[in-house]
Amino acid sequence: MSDGLPACPIPISDSPRVLMAHGGGGRFMRTLIRDLFAAAFDNPLLAAAHDGAVFPSPSARLAYTTDASVVRPLFFPGGDIGRLAVFGTVNDLAMCGARPIHLSASFILEEGLEMETLWRVVHSMADAAREAGVSIVTGDTKVVERGNADGVYISTSGIGAIEHDLAIEPASVRPGDAILLSGDVGRHGIAILAARADLMLETAIESDCAPLHRAVAALVESGVDVRCLRDLTRGGLASAVLEVAETAGLDATIDERAIPVIEPVRSACELLGFDALHVANEGRFAAWVSSADADRALEVLRAQPGCVDAVRIGTVGDTGRGTVVLRSAIGTSRILDMLSGEQLPRIC
Amino acid sequence: MSDGLPACPIPISDSPRVLMAHGGGGRFMRTLIRDLFAAAFDNPLLAAAHDGAVFPSPSARLAYTTDASVVRPLFFPGGDIGRLAVFGTVNDLAMCGARPIHLSASFILEEGLEMETLWRVVHSMADAAREAGVSIVTGDTKVVERGNADGVYISTSGIGAIEHDLAIEPASVRPGDAILLSGDVGRHGIAILAARADLMLETAIESDCAPLHRAVAALVESGVDVRCLRDLTRGGLASAVLEVAETAGLDATIDERAIPVIEPVRSACELLGFDALHVANEGRFAAWVSSADADRALEVLRAQPGCVDAVRIGTVGDTGRGTVVLRSAIGTSRILDMLSGEQLPRIC
Repeated sequence: MSDGLPACPIPISDSPRVLMAHGGGGRFMRTLIRDLFAAAFDNPLLAAAHDGAVFPSPSARLAYTTDASVVRPLFFPGGDIGRLAVFGTVNDLAMCGARPIHLSASFILEEGLEMETLWRVVHSMADAAREAGVSIVTGDTKVVERGNADGVYISTSGIGAIEHDLAIEPASVRPGDAILLSGDVGRHGIAILAARADLMLETAIESDCAPLHRAVAALVESGVDVRCLRDLTRGGLASAVLEVAETAGLDATIDERAIPVIEPVRSACELLGFDALHVANEGRFAAWVSSADADRALEVLRAQPGCVDAVRIGTVGDTGRGTVVLRSAIGTSRILDMLSGEQLPRIC
Repeated sequence: MSDGLPACPIPISDSPRVLMAHGGGGRFMRTLIRDLFAAAFDNPLLAAAHDGAVFPSPSARLAYTTDASVVRPLFFPGGDIGRLAVFGTVNDLAMCGARPIHLSASFILEEGLEMETLWRVVHSMADAAREAGVSIVTGDTKVVERGNADGVYISTSGIGAIEHDLAIEPASVRPGDAILLSGDVGRHGIAILAARADLMLETAIESDCAPLHRAVAALVESGVDVRCLRDLTRGGLASAVLEVAETAGLDATIDERAIPVIEPVRSACELLGFDALHVANEGRFAAWVSSADADRALEVLRAQPGCVDAVRIGTVGDTGRGTVVLRSAIGTSRILDMLSGEQLPRIC
């Protein structure tokens, strides 16, 4: 992340750490906003220095979402809180079938946070926004006393343009729909755990943290009848398929053998007693598509970066109340359930 | 606030306090979202239980803003963190000349927070949203370990419709424009301080926390040539007029005698050594309007609830680099400056 990182624009001699005054609405806050945030997120809407951003509506139908990011540690293999914050919101917009356009960012800073650390996070957000083709057009900053936060928390929200006529949502799922998965699962959660616990894994595992909107756009543009999309964050693949099944009120069957899990993630899960289906991802999604379009959808997905291992993992039932049956590797069946406790806090 | 508050929908026997699992993406989180957040914010977009909200664009031009709320204490005379979060975002949209439509809400909860407290906050947000005529259509919840937050932090964002042709922003301010103030200043900051310090003031001071978009709409609909608007939050009236002057690159003169300050706020400021012009407000704004429209604008404002004391406080200069001169009560002049340190942390 620090490759090519320009020097922190607020001189270290000036204030090497975040002070309460940086959230006080006076001279310090104005300097922080102008020299650090507006400099990194550089765009004319921010430069207007108004109470909000004003812009032409990008489409007749909009998508709108929000995320809080509290991941610990702030920097981990394959990403950091800044990338996660941007891609998390970009991906929620993508799951609504939208092209992400504008993001907001609100920061809660802990007094004493190193200004250099904040700069690295903000610079990483700016890079991620460029990579995803979005602008961070409005923001806010608050500072809380030492001990009332953990470095930095970021809330992002996003607005996306919907440029097609599909209704991509749980209510559109139909009996017989195919359930597709965009790639292997479990990498983000295990990468965070390894970073946190100094776990000596034989193979370094990097987070799968990535923007998903281009893969979604490719699906929609190919004319595939996309019924629903869901990214596999907290609660993993299990929560995603269960939530959609429950909301749609339709059962589903998932073939566990079809779900790709890379070997180091599988080993780590065995070691830790985790089920990879419950482990968080930040660059994976499931797609519900009409059965007739399933093969074509897989073909389109596999041509997209990061989705080469896309696979069909299951089918929506023709009745039911939202039960998901998992056919296991050894031929038995079990009812899939969400986590009932907490597996790994502050994963995102 | 607790008047008419329905019983907390998550039974106390079930989980009287927020657990880490309420942010874990599993069963606990799903219950919290469905039974507490979606129940209180009740609207069809939330009920779709998707990764975001999808809706028709409300206008050709949009306003977009965000706020983090970290106010301490959570409940104070005249408001609470929930009302502040909703009205703070509503008011930033209003300052862009927009009609607030949809809000997002992202919560960072501290493990151990009483579920009943969260319910009171969420219910107050729902009330405030109804009062302002907006819907909270998408959200997120994270939980951090005890000691890594202070009860609850809320980040809101908002989308508003711009339904006129004015460009309401600092760049539109012109030499000779009148600077108007919507009412007395300093109440919010002093109310928070009194609540926090158990300050025994002779007269109870309530926060001025209120939505401002209807007063703005009245100004715009009356045909007044509104150039810029700014609500007087952190940093108070002083930061607002200085920020606009600096961004516009034009000096201004403010008549200190014209600025209404109620007697209990004036006394408290004298006691504490505060300048009322630096104290935060949550229901006041300044308006820059063309000189020819100043009297009509005041007439329109004074007919709006909460704005009966609206007054002209100054004039934009015809050159300069953003200096604001304050003509004092005793006839002298001084250069107005922003706070250079921190007056009162976590005011909003």
